[in-house]
Amino acid sequence: MQIIDGKATAATIKAEIKEEVERLVAQGVRRPHLAAILVGHDGGSETYVKNKVLACEACGFESTLLRFEDTITEEELLAEVNRLNEDETVDGFIVQLPLPAHISEQSVIEAIDYRKDVDGFHPINVGRMAIGLPCYISATPRGIIELLKRYEIPTSGRKCVVLGRSNIVGKPMAQLMMQKEYGDSTVTVCHSRSANLKEECLQADIIIAAIGRPGFVTADMVKPGAVIIDVGTTRVPDATRKNGFRLSGDVDFENVAPLCSAITPVPGGVGPMTICMLMLNTLAAAKHEYYK
Amino acid sequence: MQIIDGKATAATIKAEIKEEVERLVAQGVRRPHLAAILVGHDGGSETYVKNKVLACEACGFESTLLRFEDTITEEELLAEVNRLNEDETVDGFIVQLPLPAHISEQSVIEAIDYRKDVDGFHPINVGRMAIGLPCYISATPRGIIELLKRYEIPTSGRKCVVLGRSNIVGKPMAQLMMQKEYGDSTVTVCHSRSANLKEECLQADIIIAAIGRPGFVTADMVKPGAVIIDVGTTRVPDATRKNGFRLSGDVDFENVAPLCSAITPVPGGVGPMTICMLMLNTLAAAKHEYYK
Repeated sequence: MQIIDGKATAATIKAEIKEEVERLVAQGVRRPHLAAILVGHDGGSETYVKNKVLACEACGFESTLLRFEDTITEEELLAEVNRLNEDETVDGFIVQLPLPAHISEQSVIEAIDYRKDVDGFHPINVGRMAIGLPCYISATPRGIIELLKRYEIPTSGRKCVVLGRSNIVGKPMAQLMMQKEYGDSTVTVCHSRSANLKEECLQADIIIAAIGRPGFVTADMVKPGAVIIDVGTTRVPDATRKNGFRLSGDVDFENVAPLCSAITPVPGGVGPMTICMLMLNTLAAAKHEYYK
Repeated sequence: MQIIDGKATAATIKAEIKEEVERLVAQGVRRPHLAAILVGHDGGSETYVKNKVLACEACGFESTLLRFEDTITEEELLAEVNRLNEDETVDGFIVQLPLPAHISEQSVIEAIDYRKDVDGFHPINVGRMAIGLPCYISATPRGIIELLKRYEIPTSGRKCVVLGRSNIVGKPMAQLMMQKEYGDSTVTVCHSRSANLKEECLQADIIIAAIGRPGFVTADMVKPGAVIIDVGTTRVPDATRKNGFRLSGDVDFENVAPLCSAITPVPGGVGPMTICMLMLNTLAAAKHEYYK
């Protein structure tokens, strides 16, 4: 059984990015520049954005953090988005979600120039991904594909069961795993309404669990030799920890791991890959890899 | 066993559209207007476009057919697309595919204003469909959803196996069948590289076959009581027919039908629904149902 080490892989990728950036800079090219908009003071969002800024530093990127109080109006926020769209020194940018309830997240996402949409949430990028065209792929699904590739997990013709149908993980994951170019798997998407979920999972060569229910995937649901990708990161109260909680995956790791050929731990699996993929998308933006 | 009669359903829907259009016209609203661009003289394309014009007449729509020789350059064609984008009297338009090899189909599709893209091929519409937002859904998948709804086929929590992963049928079909709003099925997408295809099909409550291989789905692949949607329309040589061919579905209808609870025939099943859905999309365009 192999532990798929997302932390180490992410570090390797960040080092690769840094190397490429320094080579480009030595050639006189401007450093890639990621901007982030943060509205309000949500604890989780603060942490994510801080980690994104740190990742930019690690990769040799320039970064700009624009902070706004949660009293900002949708109109004002859209004006800020537009300013970043037109700022030629910004290669890509993100608006950290969630946004306050009085602002339409979808309106903001659709206002972002798709050529700078390094989160890959704009419908143009979502659509191009589904069609199989070059585009920004959102960070978590892209990170999982990257892990499968780097660990040389065979996927073509294999059975992949995706648990969850969210717009940011389950659905794009399914789309990527069924593409001819990579993936090429037989893909089943299960969700809260699925009957026979256990039987579906038992058929899987690869299970990608993204439902946010701690320990949901148990040993009796896993075929011996399967590959398990655990996207779950639920905060579970834990008095023994300094911050009062621990992160729990969707998989009962202790009992499932011995059965698997490979498995991602939580934390240290899919999580660290996510910000790293945002960096790869930003590098692609700076290089105009997908769009002119 | 019930035959799902696409021809009759399409006729009903066209009559419904016609009724609504005449009511709108009586209120002083302009008739919906569909334009079609046809390049060259491909026999299949000529027939499709002719049928689309006839369907417009049946629905009380205005229609415009713009014909160009296959010597038209991509630049000239893009200029025509742009002219239709800007023509306020045109609600929606299509560019009949395939296009001559010297023209990039994707460039043409992406040049169409997504608000007039009644074929639903523009990445924005593809992306919005994946996310579950209101948009033009391409005709064949929308027609299948419409048939399932009108025949009150239960789908929530059921197992749906989609055979084929094309951008115009298999992939959007899978996305629609897994949405919470309608569909809500456990969805498996199988394709040329799938192992255990027979076993996958045997688990299905609903099989949607879109691979273009005549008679591929045989009785031993079908669970008794399953619902079969046959998207295949392959021309098979047939000397007994005046035109020298007959249309063959992907399903061995003769032997599969007795097993099913419901099945679409070929012809007369999914086929007639397709143009009909283009009409529904055009009506939606005229009413600005999805976009301002």
